[in-house]
Amino acid sequence: MNVKKIREDFPLLLANPDLTYLDSAATSQKPACVLRAEREFYECHNANPLRGLYELSENATKCYEDARKTVQHFIGAARPEEIIFTRNATESLNLVAYSLGSLLLKPGDEVVVSIMEHHSNLLPWQHAAKRAGAQLKFVECSKDGKITLEDVAAVLTEKTRIMAITQMSNVLGCVNDIKGIASLCHEKGIVLVADGAQSVPHMPVNVSELDVDFLSFSGHKMLAPMGIGALYGKMEWLEKMPPFLTGGEMIEYVTRTSATYAEVPHKFEAGTVNAAGAYALGEAIRYIEGIGFEEITKREDELTALAMEEMKKNPYVHIIGSDRPEDHHGILSFTVQDVHPHDVAAILDSDKIAVRAGHHCAQPLLAYLKTPSTTRASLAFYNTEEEVLRFTQSLKTLRRRMGYGE
Amino acid sequence: MNVKKIREDFPLLLANPDLTYLDSAATSQKPACVLRAEREFYECHNANPLRGLYELSENATKCYEDARKTVQHFIGAARPEEIIFTRNATESLNLVAYSLGSLLLKPGDEVVVSIMEHHSNLLPWQHAAKRAGAQLKFVECSKDGKITLEDVAAVLTEKTRIMAITQMSNVLGCVNDIKGIASLCHEKGIVLVADGAQSVPHMPVNVSELDVDFLSFSGHKMLAPMGIGALYGKMEWLEKMPPFLTGGEMIEYVTRTSATYAEVPHKFEAGTVNAAGAYALGEAIRYIEGIGFEEITKREDELTALAMEEMKKNPYVHIIGSDRPEDHHGILSFTVQDVHPHDVAAILDSDKIAVRAGHHCAQPLLAYLKTPSTTRASLAFYNTEEEVLRFTQSLKTLRRRMGYGE
Repeated sequence: MNVKKIREDFPLLLANPDLTYLDSAATSQKPACVLRAEREFYECHNANPLRGLYELSENATKCYEDARKTVQHFIGAARPEEIIFTRNATESLNLVAYSLGSLLLKPGDEVVVSIMEHHSNLLPWQHAAKRAGAQLKFVECSKDGKITLEDVAAVLTEKTRIMAITQMSNVLGCVNDIKGIASLCHEKGIVLVADGAQSVPHMPVNVSELDVDFLSFSGHKMLAPMGIGALYGKMEWLEKMPPFLTGGEMIEYVTRTSATYAEVPHKFEAGTVNAAGAYALGEAIRYIEGIGFEEITKREDELTALAMEEMKKNPYVHIIGSDRPEDHHGILSFTVQDVHPHDVAAILDSDKIAVRAGHHCAQPLLAYLKTPSTTRASLAFYNTEEEVLRFTQSLKTLRRRMGYGE
Repeated sequence: MNVKKIREDFPLLLANPDLTYLDSAATSQKPACVLRAEREFYECHNANPLRGLYELSENATKCYEDARKTVQHFIGAARPEEIIFTRNATESLNLVAYSLGSLLLKPGDEVVVSIMEHHSNLLPWQHAAKRAGAQLKFVECSKDGKITLEDVAAVLTEKTRIMAITQMSNVLGCVNDIKGIASLCHEKGIVLVADGAQSVPHMPVNVSELDVDFLSFSGHKMLAPMGIGALYGKMEWLEKMPPFLTGGEMIEYVTRTSATYAEVPHKFEAGTVNAAGAYALGEAIRYIEGIGFEEITKREDELTALAMEEMKKNPYVHIIGSDRPEDHHGILSFTVQDVHPHDVAAILDSDKIAVRAGHHCAQPLLAYLKTPSTTRASLAFYNTEEEVLRFTQSLKTLRRRMGYGE
């Protein structure tokens, strides 16, 4: 992989050579081809899709539905209809929690989530459980972020209807065994919802191989624009589920007091769709496939290993989660002894290094780890060794700049 | 207004001189400055806003929050916090129906909507009423689309909690007296939700003058990209309402079983926001303000009058709604005797004229008007007299091309 050449594809990186962007787990930078695709939609194909009887609108519909197929093939779904376009992973998870929750959950039932969930895969289930009179239960993890199949099996009961778990933690970077968990769940007739917001941009994810029932992800974390995301769902569930948002284009027929809903996927896509966003997401996927996950994961693993090696030389830096670089997938949450994580981020920023600090929308995990907040550096394939070293070098001087002896 | 010069701002119109785009009520075309703005966000400011402690993210936050102020001033809201960014008007209406509905509605209560609502301002209220055990009631309109204050007053009762009505019908083009209705509602302590999806792009709308409690609208109908919209709500209601979508960035604190929510507006903006979309919406508003609504409405009224004058010369064309051009605001739904509305659209398309046909997501209105479907031409300030005449000329030959004598 020629990273110099790749960075030429990213206008923001090219225009800011002194910026070290280590916040790709929050949102990725965008290659020019994706920005061109979005613009091309508006300049050449812009019409309200799905509704028109004229050529321009038919083209817009084709752009949108082709993007659905691109997403389908990217994650190995059996049918394009199994891809619902949403705004982002958060909306995807709200949709499935609300709709599947109202289909399945009865008083006394149980919903299981893991302790490492992003708030987006926790709060919707808190609400779904509360609405139904069901109970929310937690699978804990080890200090290094490991959730074993035994841990999961111990929490699943005859009352469990739904389990929701992230494929990759946005704090620890660890990957959960979704395939193994799906198998455990299905033995007991439990529906498995996986959050792929962090995994889908960074590793090959095949929903058919995983046999997961639902998978959510966001475009903006995988080179695509903001405002577009997706929910994969198995057809057998999507067909049974009631709609979530209601309005235009998701109906067959409406009377004053009732409605007959459209077929999947349109049943779940109320109002004017973000066709330009979907079209640009399709281009982002083609860009990722053009490089290939083999290259992407290899590169991100190498950068992670380099960062950890350098960070470990610093006795004041404590990395959260596993000791092994291969468990981190580019996500390094850490603390610096006696320095508040916000100060760590601020000092790194003064060196033009962009990292995140706080609870990373995962407060129950941080409470469980007894770390109210951390600083997080997150890598992507467009980062360089030089950037990693700039970051670890800045870390080295950080305590001194806060007034400590070293 | 120099329409030739204005059309140079719209790349799609410029690239397709033979296209007559008369479907702006479905979605508008986009000026180059809006497309540049969106691209500029990604090339110069792209980071996940609201969360970062580094310069780039602070800039992204500023872009996003400045756009909120631009929307605030555009619709005359008292405070920026009263603007919630959503995906589109449909999501805005789902948000308010779900959240306000769960706050206010009890069994036996009544919700009033008008017969001319778009499905987006009907289905969410059907659901909200059903969830609460409340009843949905309708204000009818006259054949020419008029809803008088007496009509409204006759339906409001001591049991009415919420009234939802469009400011401008997407089928008839008529404008409802939101200010008068707000006054009637407030006398009885009823909350008024107005749908501004069609009005906000085409006429000055000031929520403070109207004294409306909520107003929804979409960016994509007002020159902005798809995937961004807004909900205005009075602070006193927004503060009391529970959140709708839950997840990242809309919380203060989360435990395993509960959450404390963030302040308005962030309580209602779960997950990564569409900052680039908001930024581009801000630019679209500046473009509209640069021309000014005085010019825009004058021009759209002139084009509407010309179209109606020509259409009325055709004895086989029947315009739905009022006979007066000034009641149509660029929206002309019509039927052609003995020709199915879909065939009308298809033949117009063969002349490169883009219009819509069908139920326009307003089936109860069409059932009420005893017209299962219509063809709709909708105008914007970037249309020309020549385009209007191309359309009415094509209408003249239409029946002949369907095999009728004339």
